[in-house]
Amino acid sequence: MKALRIFGGPSTLIRSVVKPCQRSGGLGVYSHASISCRPINQYQTRPFITDIPRRIHSQHDSPVPPTKQRDSKAITAGILAFTTAVAALGWTLNGPDLNAEAPPARQETKDAPKGKFFRLDEIRKHGADSERPWVIKGTGVYDITDWIESHPGGKVVLRAAGSSVEPYWNIFTIHKKDDVYQILEQFRIGDVDPLDLVDGCVPQEQVDDPFREDPERDSRLVYLTEKPCNAETPPSGLTSFITDTPLFYVRHHFWVPPIDPSSYKITIDLGDGSDEKTYTLDDLRTKFPQHTITAVLQCSGNRRSHMSEGSGREASGLKWDVGAISNAEWRGPRLRDVLRDAGLNLEDPPEDIQHAQFSGEDAYGASVPIDKVMDARGDVLLACEMNGKILPPDHGYPVRVLVPGVTGARSVKWVNRITLSEEESETQWQRRDYKCFGPNQGRDAVNWDNAPSIQETPVHYAVSGGGRRIIRVDISTDNGKTWDQAEIQPDQSRGNKAWSWALWKYHCGRRLEPGSTVIVKAIDETYNVQPDTHGPTFNFRGNLANAWHRVRVED
Amino acid sequence: MKALRIFGGPSTLIRSVVKPCQRSGGLGVYSHASISCRPINQYQTRPFITDIPRRIHSQHDSPVPPTKQRDSKAITAGILAFTTAVAALGWTLNGPDLNAEAPPARQETKDAPKGKFFRLDEIRKHGADSERPWVIKGTGVYDITDWIESHPGGKVVLRAAGSSVEPYWNIFTIHKKDDVYQILEQFRIGDVDPLDLVDGCVPQEQVDDPFREDPERDSRLVYLTEKPCNAETPPSGLTSFITDTPLFYVRHHFWVPPIDPSSYKITIDLGDGSDEKTYTLDDLRTKFPQHTITAVLQCSGNRRSHMSEGSGREASGLKWDVGAISNAEWRGPRLRDVLRDAGLNLEDPPEDIQHAQFSGEDAYGASVPIDKVMDARGDVLLACEMNGKILPPDHGYPVRVLVPGVTGARSVKWVNRITLSEEESETQWQRRDYKCFGPNQGRDAVNWDNAPSIQETPVHYAVSGGGRRIIRVDISTDNGKTWDQAEIQPDQSRGNKAWSWALWKYHCGRRLEPGSTVIVKAIDETYNVQPDTHGPTFNFRGNLANAWHRVRVED
Repeated sequence: MKALRIFGGPSTLIRSVVKPCQRSGGLGVYSHASISCRPINQYQTRPFITDIPRRIHSQHDSPVPPTKQRDSKAITAGILAFTTAVAALGWTLNGPDLNAEAPPARQETKDAPKGKFFRLDEIRKHGADSERPWVIKGTGVYDITDWIESHPGGKVVLRAAGSSVEPYWNIFTIHKKDDVYQILEQFRIGDVDPLDLVDGCVPQEQVDDPFREDPERDSRLVYLTEKPCNAETPPSGLTSFITDTPLFYVRHHFWVPPIDPSSYKITIDLGDGSDEKTYTLDDLRTKFPQHTITAVLQCSGNRRSHMSEGSGREASGLKWDVGAISNAEWRGPRLRDVLRDAGLNLEDPPEDIQHAQFSGEDAYGASVPIDKVMDARGDVLLACEMNGKILPPDHGYPVRVLVPGVTGARSVKWVNRITLSEEESETQWQRRDYKCFGPNQGRDAVNWDNAPSIQETPVHYAVSGGGRRIIRVDISTDNGKTWDQAEIQPDQSRGNKAWSWALWKYHCGRRLEPGSTVIVKAIDETYNVQPDTHGPTFNFRGNLANAWHRVRVED
Repeated sequence: MKALRIFGGPSTLIRSVVKPCQRSGGLGVYSHASISCRPINQYQTRPFITDIPRRIHSQHDSPVPPTKQRDSKAITAGILAFTTAVAALGWTLNGPDLNAEAPPARQETKDAPKGKFFRLDEIRKHGADSERPWVIKGTGVYDITDWIESHPGGKVVLRAAGSSVEPYWNIFTIHKKDDVYQILEQFRIGDVDPLDLVDGCVPQEQVDDPFREDPERDSRLVYLTEKPCNAETPPSGLTSFITDTPLFYVRHHFWVPPIDPSSYKITIDLGDGSDEKTYTLDDLRTKFPQHTITAVLQCSGNRRSHMSEGSGREASGLKWDVGAISNAEWRGPRLRDVLRDAGLNLEDPPEDIQHAQFSGEDAYGASVPIDKVMDARGDVLLACEMNGKILPPDHGYPVRVLVPGVTGARSVKWVNRITLSEEESETQWQRRDYKCFGPNQGRDAVNWDNAPSIQETPVHYAVSGGGRRIIRVDISTDNGKTWDQAEIQPDQSRGNKAWSWALWKYHCGRRLEPGSTVIVKAIDETYNVQPDTHGPTFNFRGNLANAWHRVRVED
């Protein structure tokens, strides 16, 4: 009798289904590199499409006029992060065209005063420090003063002020699309004086590539984009309980900010009007008990390509296969201990404190409900170590938030500010990108407030959100007619709850026909299950694709 | 244009789909009594089959010999409840034949000594207080000494000691089946002397019906069984946020124990070797802050009939339709406050305290993880009031445990003892009945330890476990091809989390064809969803049937 062994665990592991055993008895164990199955939904090509930043809105229902005033403390935090964000400019005047947002309406129509020309000398005076910064695109001149606040990359756009944006867009190619051009066009005030043109063009300057300091990365990662880096853990990294650090998936929205650990500080704003507190890296490592947990991080978009193919509908964003998930050991102080030290009364917190907002040095920001942070069993860390070593730059050096049991987007890397607030973070990553709407909801005319931000995640082989333990993994080799159970491996996780994935293996006592399908589904301790199909959970952002994993057996 | 209005909320409400509007514009609102849809899976008949008590095991893998010694404190608690259980006898020598358990093996074979006869005078000496109690069935004589401890109804079986069990079995008809007879047969020691027979039979005595003191009940309840009472909330009771108390579903395993409130006491055993503490009803009402929450209770078996019909496989237990769910307001002290008063250190509890076991006056028992009880936001009450009035007898008067967000089976009624322990309750309701195994797992040769007890429940329109809020209700009128959203009604719930169901309504702008299907599915804040179909979640106990609700439109 021929036999098949399937080694599983994370959603990824079905990718490492191995070849039918050639020895009788089915006892052969094969290397995970020997892949004979591939997900039916796996995309063969991965176009360089990113689901990167969109402009920020302080209101949610309709696009915000560029002059909209921000008045909440919460928003201030986000903006402060931007002011310290490292260099580079022109980062996404608008997001990808697959996104749902309409261009912002201007409060007053300022048609480009056609025929109005500006000399380059005058334009250069509208630099980063001027009252009204301008940029050039083509031969057009644009007053971006009212736009800066809505720019997802924050004030980094000012790097181009007084000159042309195009050298930057040659790096951030995401801008090279019609909808970006259309947004910019609203701010046009005239053109460059033909006297300054060379062969009809504005002379271009050399600009620094902000990604030039990104770290070297492992070639075994499965790269979707390089700038910013988005790369899956390869199958070989998904067969062990702990993912080797170099193989841990990378999900960046920007470049990796270079941070000097000796001058690093994290600022805590308790949101109660008290003075902000700051802590150095040394403070975090020596003033507080250090805790170690193991926890999976998973991108909300993991298996997005499966959702698109399974539903026959295109979802926007990076076309992740199964590898936007990894498991590591994390160590650092508990955030609740730091907050207590900063003055928060954990036993009787202010009623208007509902969220903890995190800002990263890279301009990224997100938040989690304060209950998760306060929970003595919640295990939210300010992680300084990963797998027993200092955090590598790609994973947040020197400090990242680690929110176990919650979608990866909330574990903010390079965190430099924490603000407690009545409101969620105002960033688009909190208020827009990481939400799921109904299958019928298109990206046009969406009311972003109609869905909650993704926090705890649903069950997905073989990990669940909220620390809910995986209790069973079901396998079907006859397209769901009958089922059998995989053998869940002994748990090696650390922490108050089941923050890690469950590894499993399955021994199929017969040879599977090439072309047949293996289905895997997991069940967690609340007996929540994965849905049968992708169509009914399709959402235009392509988040949380957790339908059964169907894997075709190859020859 | 004809129109259809669907009023929803609990799983039940789809039953109250109303007739297509006869007026144009679709604005007509119909009474909930006007039912035009019925669940496709609805059983037309409800045979009087109960999933009532089975004998208790102190070990889990294999049946326990009757003489097995119990040594854990936890078990003691369960047994103590039995000793105080109210009168009546003969309660399930074995459970229903649909259950998975094999008859217990005897440690030594005691073949009935055929030809050995006993006079009735001698048998009467083996009454409840004797060292070796005997009972009569037919003309057989049985020494049940070694059986008492394994009897699910506990020592109430002793009510028949010294006489015939048959008058009791005429009340508890569940005993009248072969597997019960077979178990009893193992204890046969001989026969009644023919000299005492009248027309070949043992003269029967009159016995009291322990159900005679059960309360009067509302005739609108949908009765599945009368003794014990198991009755669904009718559709008319499921259209309001709070279920009227008389229409709150009833799920009993025994009769309703009559309790004198003036002598009522609850005993707390902290499991740390300290003295037990007791509290009177007055103590509970006056010594502790009283809290009010709203919370759904739902039987794990709700929609079992749908699971059976949807999967084409028979599941054991009461064939609930959609009405084993109701929502009420509950009031009483928090259990954590009472435990603290009894001496538990909530900030630093003993590590070996993992579960809180509850015993009811009726002999029922169950447990929940101690974390749920300790959680300041967990809202576990010792409920003394329901919907603003004292708890009615059918719902636990004078005190029941109310564990919101957890399957109904853990909210033990008529609670008189709470024991903290390293282990779960040893009752079959904890260790066996309320678990889900894989679709492939038969009731024979099941290893009961292979599945966890149901605690927090999965998402199910329109309520979820663990206080996870319902964020969306999707409706499809074209068999799942396209979806639309129902309008979720403003939340009226009280408590720290979303313990109540979400009511919803949906206005379909077109007439639905008779025979067509309306599908409803809910999504909770963790974006867990209901599975598409019943087959892959089938389990032989028929628990947690949460696949999409499919409702056929009737003419």
